[in-house]
Amino acid sequence: MSALPTDLLPPPPLEPGTLRVVALGGLGEVGRNMSVLEYDGKLLLIDCGVLFPEEHQPGVDVILPDFDYIADRLGDVEALVLTHGHEDHIGAVPYLLALRPDIPVIGSRLTLAFVAAKLKEHRISATTREVKEGERAAFGDFHCEFVAVNHSIPDALAVAVTTPAGTVLNTGDFKMDQLPLDGRITDLRAFARLGTEGVDLFMVDSTNAEVPGFVTPEREIGPVLDQVFAESQQRIVVASFASHVHRVQQVLNAAHAHGRKVALVGRSMVRNMGVAVDLGYLTLPGDVLIDLRQVTDLPDDQVVLMCTGSQGEPMAALSRMANGNHKVSIEPGDTVILASSLIPGNENAVYRVINGLMRLGARVVHSGNAKVHVSGHSAAGELLYCYNILRPKNVMPIHGETRHLIANGALAVKTGVPPERVMIAEDGVVVDLRDGKANIVGAVPCGFVYVDGSSVGKLTDDELQDRRVLGEEGFISVFVAADFAAKTIVAGPTIRARGVAEDDAVLDSLVEQVRQSVETSLAEGANPHQAQQAVRRVVGRFASNRLRRRPMIVPVVLGV
Amino acid sequence: MSALPTDLLPPPPLEPGTLRVVALGGLGEVGRNMSVLEYDGKLLLIDCGVLFPEEHQPGVDVILPDFDYIADRLGDVEALVLTHGHEDHIGAVPYLLALRPDIPVIGSRLTLAFVAAKLKEHRISATTREVKEGERAAFGDFHCEFVAVNHSIPDALAVAVTTPAGTVLNTGDFKMDQLPLDGRITDLRAFARLGTEGVDLFMVDSTNAEVPGFVTPEREIGPVLDQVFAESQQRIVVASFASHVHRVQQVLNAAHAHGRKVALVGRSMVRNMGVAVDLGYLTLPGDVLIDLRQVTDLPDDQVVLMCTGSQGEPMAALSRMANGNHKVSIEPGDTVILASSLIPGNENAVYRVINGLMRLGARVVHSGNAKVHVSGHSAAGELLYCYNILRPKNVMPIHGETRHLIANGALAVKTGVPPERVMIAEDGVVVDLRDGKANIVGAVPCGFVYVDGSSVGKLTDDELQDRRVLGEEGFISVFVAADFAAKTIVAGPTIRARGVAEDDAVLDSLVEQVRQSVETSLAEGANPHQAQQAVRRVVGRFASNRLRRRPMIVPVVLGV
Repeated sequence: MSALPTDLLPPPPLEPGTLRVVALGGLGEVGRNMSVLEYDGKLLLIDCGVLFPEEHQPGVDVILPDFDYIADRLGDVEALVLTHGHEDHIGAVPYLLALRPDIPVIGSRLTLAFVAAKLKEHRISATTREVKEGERAAFGDFHCEFVAVNHSIPDALAVAVTTPAGTVLNTGDFKMDQLPLDGRITDLRAFARLGTEGVDLFMVDSTNAEVPGFVTPEREIGPVLDQVFAESQQRIVVASFASHVHRVQQVLNAAHAHGRKVALVGRSMVRNMGVAVDLGYLTLPGDVLIDLRQVTDLPDDQVVLMCTGSQGEPMAALSRMANGNHKVSIEPGDTVILASSLIPGNENAVYRVINGLMRLGARVVHSGNAKVHVSGHSAAGELLYCYNILRPKNVMPIHGETRHLIANGALAVKTGVPPERVMIAEDGVVVDLRDGKANIVGAVPCGFVYVDGSSVGKLTDDELQDRRVLGEEGFISVFVAADFAAKTIVAGPTIRARGVAEDDAVLDSLVEQVRQSVETSLAEGANPHQAQQAVRRVVGRFASNRLRRRPMIVPVVLGV
Repeated sequence: MSALPTDLLPPPPLEPGTLRVVALGGLGEVGRNMSVLEYDGKLLLIDCGVLFPEEHQPGVDVILPDFDYIADRLGDVEALVLTHGHEDHIGAVPYLLALRPDIPVIGSRLTLAFVAAKLKEHRISATTREVKEGERAAFGDFHCEFVAVNHSIPDALAVAVTTPAGTVLNTGDFKMDQLPLDGRITDLRAFARLGTEGVDLFMVDSTNAEVPGFVTPEREIGPVLDQVFAESQQRIVVASFASHVHRVQQVLNAAHAHGRKVALVGRSMVRNMGVAVDLGYLTLPGDVLIDLRQVTDLPDDQVVLMCTGSQGEPMAALSRMANGNHKVSIEPGDTVILASSLIPGNENAVYRVINGLMRLGARVVHSGNAKVHVSGHSAAGELLYCYNILRPKNVMPIHGETRHLIANGALAVKTGVPPERVMIAEDGVVVDLRDGKANIVGAVPCGFVYVDGSSVGKLTDDELQDRRVLGEEGFISVFVAADFAAKTIVAGPTIRARGVAEDDAVLDSLVEQVRQSVETSLAEGANPHQAQQAVRRVVGRFASNRLRRRPMIVPVVLGV
């Protein structure tokens, strides 16, 4: 373990008997998880998720793994294994299947149900195969064994992949809650057996590797909810992630215990919980669920609204309630519970929602003032258990920013894994496993693939830079049509400025400068392009000197 | 205490014997602190700071208090009292003095020195009066007593203002470190005496009111720094706020103890520490300071770089080091300490810096993994002490978002202040103090005043909305010049699109649609405005249906 290699060359051709591992996403960021295992010319894919954009990626809907590395080898893909049903593991499946629709998609029952709902929206049908913990299945040379893991969504799996080159264990996302609500623990017996048989490469979730100790059991949230419900005399609104079946279960239980009915709010919440009920992952105590339209028929102290929007998303129900723009109006004395983590980067948005709710008189309970959320990822203490139970020969931390990967690698080293057997790799870095030893042997190009409206992969970093300039500074455009033969302006100059804070009078003075510039160009026999460049300089100087700013400048000089 | 009043009317005229308090900033946000006290037609101003913009205010440099309420009464201002030298308390002074340069500016020695440095940059000279803790001074009818408070900058003061209507105590920013590095504690003896004499309105810092317990003493950072210094065998880089004299002092002490020299990096760091040394607030152990140019002459294990950039500011030295774009290159084994808080909203930027430094092989020590920062604001436990020592008749929480103000008010109520005597007010809300009772009597308009390049107060919320659209979606502009009499297009259609991710070919198909639209308009005898509106519809439909996006559309149809 040391500084990340930054000057990697393309990898050598894959030698016989070697397993190659390349992440197309998820290493260096939290999201768009996807790994490619290659053996003897065939590929096995693990996960295919999306990444949500940060503020320096404005207007981007989601970010995909970079499929380029496998784009011309899709025929060699034996299967896509999905570890669980979260967006950062399944969100990009429709985009992959758009390239080759018949890739077999492997996953647990709930995972495939969530994928099916997603594919339906994209009008794609897939070839799926349902697997269970304990089950084994071979996809070409890739012999897979699926292992139960506990996470913040039911039915999550780790996958052990054995080829003649050795065994790779990929944890997916997991934690080690020893008393989970559904009794389905991370199967450390299986981990121990695999360890005894020999795990050659351990690909392990790094999300919480920096967090010391152990994650609080999910069931400790129940009593806290119970307490808040007991103290509430009016309506209760709970916001959480739309896939967190166990969290919703605890809210349903608390509501039932306190004589309240629950209305689900928000498309994804209604859809996912419908799936969870249908498949038996969510149990309804009594007739606890009601329709949102029935809420007004009940006294306030018998109502719970279960909604999304816990990250401050401006269009979600919770934000609209906080702004007074929702049919459910928050009244003084109402209670709002944000039963989710605060994902870094969303702080301002979340606090705006909390301030808005408090301004309306609501009591707001959130992870900052009560234990209403626990993480779904193993903390450092749990990871140490894993390393000691598995004793892997080589370790490749996955799922995380660089800081998480490095922290996870350091834990591996503490348990006795030699530092040179810890692969700190980012997206596109090529790891080869051969004779029980993993090594970084090169890197392939791996970029960000932006989905933006109907466009996939067309948005470039240059265009994002344009957006940042436009968003910070606005633009000034100038239009002039001129007869270059007659050397006269025939239309314009007309100025349009947006996002530039100036009085019209200020911009009027620019019209005159542009006119003079064009007239000079005409007199000097310039062509339209030269005249346009001259206008650009005039407007740029005006913005810099007069406005002390750097808006985008868009000059158009046309010859008639 | 209840929901914030949202339908306040303009206040009644100020009655004789009544003190009026209005905040022009700082109530409902963390920053741009400024309060106006009015008695008998005269005004006393307390603090005049700036607020830094959030991501929904793109391109804004800083945000000022709204001076509108006092704009035509500046002649009535007796003085501006500054509690301490942080930007959120002094940053807007140049903008206020630009309106009336001879307002007397009152503050402690270090506060006035920082103001002077700032005014020099704005080429403004001010009328100042230096005051000390324990000192009394009258400005018209406003009889002020200054009280020492402890904060994350030396020489901070609270101010008690007595008029015939009673005594107001404004804490400024403060905490109650009982063993501060400079021995200058918050003067609870003076608070106790003022309480005994009677504090009619207690205006109290709310920043940490949600945080239970007590702030860790600043001096506990020293041993942590010492430990990190002892473990470091190469260069050490420390990032902190440029005004945190005591933090820098501890770094200088640790460096000296470990045989290292310190180079200050960054304009504000060099300037502020120069002032602090000159005035005796910063003590140099030995010849510990060196120039940045001397760094390369020393072995790596004798070097400390003290810089700004702890909030991930992209242009600061630390970000550039993380990106490898700084003359100081980070090497594997170097240590970087972020000795500051992580201000909400900056998480992504800060983690980008941390990831970048770790990628280069640095060890990064920050508040997430070591005790290298403590807050400058009293936590709930400290505030309870204050309320009990002062026993104020009325309380007005200041300095904070709504959630902070409400949390602080709840603490006051717990100590026995009647709920109806706690003024939860936002910017512009008018509080009148009369006969020992404070009441909210109305509100005055109070908006956000944006500084953007050379423009102050010209940027409107509409223009910010334009910027958000431009930043998220880009724009498509179309330019056509036509002879409306001859019913022919003479130039164009020409399209310019920026921040819109599409192939040229896609936009080419739009040219044809626009041409047809304009030709139809011409044939139908439309005027240029009507033709332009038709073009807007064509482009809008194209963007929505074909691109599935909503860029800004800027059509220009000119008649020749």
